[in-house]
Amino acid sequence: MSLLVVGSVALDSVETPFGRAVDALGGSATFFTASASAFCKVQVVAVVGDDFPEEGIRFLEGCGADLAGLERVPGRSFRWSGVYSFDLNNRETLDTQLGVFADFRPHVPDEFRSAEWVFLGNIDPELQLQVLEQIHSPRLVACDTMNFWIEGKREALLELLSRVDLLLVNDSEARELSGDHNLARAARWIQERGPRYVIIKKGEHGAILFTPTSVFFAPGYPLEEVFDPTGAGDSFAGGLMGYLAKHGGLEDADLRRAVVYGSAMGSFAVERFSVERFRNLTGEEIHDRVRRFRDMMIFELPLPVSADV
Amino acid sequence: MSLLVVGSVALDSVETPFGRAVDALGGSATFFTASASAFCKVQVVAVVGDDFPEEGIRFLEGCGADLAGLERVPGRSFRWSGVYSFDLNNRETLDTQLGVFADFRPHVPDEFRSAEWVFLGNIDPELQLQVLEQIHSPRLVACDTMNFWIEGKREALLELLSRVDLLLVNDSEARELSGDHNLARAARWIQERGPRYVIIKKGEHGAILFTPTSVFFAPGYPLEEVFDPTGAGDSFAGGLMGYLAKHGGLEDADLRRAVVYGSAMGSFAVERFSVERFRNLTGEEIHDRVRRFRDMMIFELPLPVSADV
Repeated sequence: MSLLVVGSVALDSVETPFGRAVDALGGSATFFTASASAFCKVQVVAVVGDDFPEEGIRFLEGCGADLAGLERVPGRSFRWSGVYSFDLNNRETLDTQLGVFADFRPHVPDEFRSAEWVFLGNIDPELQLQVLEQIHSPRLVACDTMNFWIEGKREALLELLSRVDLLLVNDSEARELSGDHNLARAARWIQERGPRYVIIKKGEHGAILFTPTSVFFAPGYPLEEVFDPTGAGDSFAGGLMGYLAKHGGLEDADLRRAVVYGSAMGSFAVERFSVERFRNLTGEEIHDRVRRFRDMMIFELPLPVSADV
Repeated sequence: MSLLVVGSVALDSVETPFGRAVDALGGSATFFTASASAFCKVQVVAVVGDDFPEEGIRFLEGCGADLAGLERVPGRSFRWSGVYSFDLNNRETLDTQLGVFADFRPHVPDEFRSAEWVFLGNIDPELQLQVLEQIHSPRLVACDTMNFWIEGKREALLELLSRVDLLLVNDSEARELSGDHNLARAARWIQERGPRYVIIKKGEHGAILFTPTSVFFAPGYPLEEVFDPTGAGDSFAGGLMGYLAKHGGLEDADLRRAVVYGSAMGSFAVERFSVERFRNLTGEEIHDRVRRFRDMMIFELPLPVSADV
């Protein structure tokens, strides 16, 4: 059940209507690891600068992560800063400083190369491909991407898509990638380019899983207080991949449960700034939220149903 | 199982990326009736002008509707025209001509006053109140409204809310009415003002039912072709109320099934211009789509679940 992630380990400065965090622990690999660690051990491939706070390393160690693939090099760590609109549905990136990520050439440690479950977090698709080439025979490779790569590295991204099993993107990315506004058609377009499975994330509106034979819809959790949406997507991915890695199945029923666990983990992420909500999150809290998802989605049909409505 | 609707019977001119319809049959009471008639007989309270096409009357008669409450008076019928954006998610109203609706004073025929199930379609809340006062002892009163009344007739609308059981609104309306962007809080705000049940419609993102004790989420149906979104909300309401009126229950399980039947009927409405999709819609097609909704929403949890995720 070895689970590997490559992505950013970063420092985020975030402003929401509810407050402000400066140089808080962030990045796709960080949120993924914080979330997936509730299910299994995570192998991290990433890079930080020599300014990266010891507390951040201790947090990832505290998650039980294997940091053999986390390089520490001279220079500044990746930094992102952004501000959210009053309704939290839009965010503006104020600044992105690649720092040591600009020259990152991911090296997968030997002991990570037999990873069975692989998540290629949102970084340059050429780097995602480099990581993939170092893994021997994964059972499932999932990847994320963003508009920046869809526009700037389309060829590399299409090459990557032909070699992954699952693409996780948000709705605007699915539309931009496929050139089709309709999400059902956009998902089919993506599936025709490689990934058997496509998950389209719609923020507060939930997520849709497309498999070769079915569609599954998980709602967004109706939180009364959303504090900071940063990292929700990577926390979703962490819950999804952590659940799959732990339980091992890839049947439709396994994927559906994994999507719900992912949705639950994403809903926890937004309740606090940064990774704060994961610090003391218990298994019982996770199960309780998953049961609430089930309660939101259940309805019974009398069977057999007659043609008379 | 008597079901009464008051609303507009109108002529719509609609332009979508796929075509154009001029003076097509439309209006909230029309879509509601076309949809609800798949489940039970509908009593219609509305007004049309002397220019209203005989074909429109024949359509409603063909639905099996009781038109004793449909007044025909001198003047022009209500007309709406609008144009949809390329992605069908936004529409611009080009023109609204109230015509005979400007002086409409709804009169509920004696034989309609014992209606058990009542839908107050989106018209002036003062008119909705007038209709409600003429009904003896309904089992369930549902109403719809829109931004125009939320802004212009807030007092009458709040008076109405204190007297209805179920409010159906879309997400932007729920936000504007409550002054709260968060939909979970907006629903609670509305419930505190009267309606036990609130359904928030989110277009392609589905619908959420809030009851005093639970939340239920129905996804949007992932159609690959959406032709004309006009009337989707009223068709949803028709399926919901038709299902409830036919089956008679008001338990949580009944309401959930009704929301899914409403979602199915809304998804049919958008497949063609105007009410065209309802002309030959069969019970088997409706059940089939409801089963597809169930297939999109099912996931199983192993029980009992241990605290170990």
